[in-house]
Amino acid sequence: MSVYPADRVTLREVGLRDGLQLAKALPSTEAKRAWLAAEAKAGVRHFEVGSFLPAARFPQFADVDEMIAAAEALDVHSAALTLNERGAEAAIRTDVREMVCVVSATEEHSQANARRSRDEAVALVGRVVAMRDAEAPGKLVNAGLAMALGCSLAGAVDPDEVLRLAGACLEAGADIVGIADTVGFAGPRAVGRLCAGMTRLCGDRPYIIHLHDTRGMGVANAAAALDNGARVIDASLGGLGGCPFAPGATGNVVFEDIVFLAESMGFATGIDLEALREARAIAEGAMPGEVFHGAMHRAGPPPNMPWRAN
Amino acid sequence: MSVYPADRVTLREVGLRDGLQLAKALPSTEAKRAWLAAEAKAGVRHFEVGSFLPAARFPQFADVDEMIAAAEALDVHSAALTLNERGAEAAIRTDVREMVCVVSATEEHSQANARRSRDEAVALVGRVVAMRDAEAPGKLVNAGLAMALGCSLAGAVDPDEVLRLAGACLEAGADIVGIADTVGFAGPRAVGRLCAGMTRLCGDRPYIIHLHDTRGMGVANAAAALDNGARVIDASLGGLGGCPFAPGATGNVVFEDIVFLAESMGFATGIDLEALREARAIAEGAMPGEVFHGAMHRAGPPPNMPWRAN
Repeated sequence: MSVYPADRVTLREVGLRDGLQLAKALPSTEAKRAWLAAEAKAGVRHFEVGSFLPAARFPQFADVDEMIAAAEALDVHSAALTLNERGAEAAIRTDVREMVCVVSATEEHSQANARRSRDEAVALVGRVVAMRDAEAPGKLVNAGLAMALGCSLAGAVDPDEVLRLAGACLEAGADIVGIADTVGFAGPRAVGRLCAGMTRLCGDRPYIIHLHDTRGMGVANAAAALDNGARVIDASLGGLGGCPFAPGATGNVVFEDIVFLAESMGFATGIDLEALREARAIAEGAMPGEVFHGAMHRAGPPPNMPWRAN
Repeated sequence: MSVYPADRVTLREVGLRDGLQLAKALPSTEAKRAWLAAEAKAGVRHFEVGSFLPAARFPQFADVDEMIAAAEALDVHSAALTLNERGAEAAIRTDVREMVCVVSATEEHSQANARRSRDEAVALVGRVVAMRDAEAPGKLVNAGLAMALGCSLAGAVDPDEVLRLAGACLEAGADIVGIADTVGFAGPRAVGRLCAGMTRLCGDRPYIIHLHDTRGMGVANAAAALDNGARVIDASLGGLGGCPFAPGATGNVVFEDIVFLAESMGFATGIDLEALREARAIAEGAMPGEVFHGAMHRAGPPPNMPWRAN
């Protein structure tokens, strides 16, 4: 899939979606547009820009249409969450390039979070695919498996069950599936094992690994994912996006640090670390009181050696 | 070597040495003793407790004799830096169990930091070994290779050169060698490759990997080290120990997070994470203004799943 080429590493910026989910101070649409533009200028090409959810309850995503238009104007790939058919209908009326459905990896979380069974969630993916086929054939459908590496309700998650669900989503017509360590429970062995299974399952198709740094394993888990064939990694600028189950915890894995990781492992990202500083300054300025994480931002790359291995 | 068994993972607490090197507020000897005792109670068995350096210039290590006595009273393994023969003489008069010599991996750093060539540094290891053999045969001699994964002066470091120096230190009689990413330049590929070489070189003998989290790669690098046969990892409580070349940067890799990493990978550490909190509270109380890092301290282990894989 040329959007997510199999022969290189793609970093997906999810800060404008996952990073705003728990934010205390919401950035203005203007600031979000400037953030998006600055990151696009630094070479980032894939963005989750929001979620199709009721604006009254989720004011941080009320401007999702404008953010999609902004991404389109910059000619970068935009994705947005479509958690039900109403969301998918709304997405289809926009230029969004990717509609993201979510399937919980455990029955407990599926029922508690979405009030539907996992099978119903997979069936919903199929219906979104059908809507897409009928009305917007150019868009991708992404099915993300939440709690795929540990569940805040069910605890340990059987990797075979995750692979079964991923396969079911692909059979339902999803173009790409993702596996998420939503609450940051996993270490690199578990991530590596699941990614090895996903690589076998997906073959030439890309899949996404979505990691949270809740327990400090984020970068190690991303390295294990890359070692085992994952080629699309979600991350957020400054690690924005806390965890509702772990107060004070880091959010998504830090975008800047993942750029360094990937490059040090020989995967060209096409991203200019220095230029990311401007995007970060914009985001920080627009979200006072929010903690921005990341070691690369503080230390910068090694000053006197080639760190991009490729 | 039973001090560092080959069939399990040993975590070495270096906070009382490396962690104090750049500290702004120095903890009292009383506080350091309480910190040591609390960490020993949590199951930590290996400590760098100081350095034999002129007390006038390094007041943080003026109490190294008392710290060694405190470790001995707790029956835990103590190590201290002996950077020259005067240091080794002083160490031999104490009950310290391990004398740590340092050899720079690059000629540039060796000259700038120690005003001696690398060959002279290896020869010094041999002389410390001879002193040990004559006067204190029970003690271990450890030769640590600084800047082994990137050098603040020379930039990239040839891994074959590091392996040559490590071999020379073993030939000079060192019981154990260490490789240090002193300024946190490396990613997991480089660490994994060097550790694979060290595992081949050292055979049944243990070696130490010493990592700094300067660029956020610390945990990923530790995972790569474990994957490639390293079994002794240096870390410091709360990641104490900044980097003089990277202001604001994290110091050593965070002890608590490495416990989680190792256990999640199936390596029993024998360390009680909950009990480490008391040690951290003591250290934090004794070092006001110092930043303590670490995700496990904030988030705690996954609440409802077995995270110790073994």
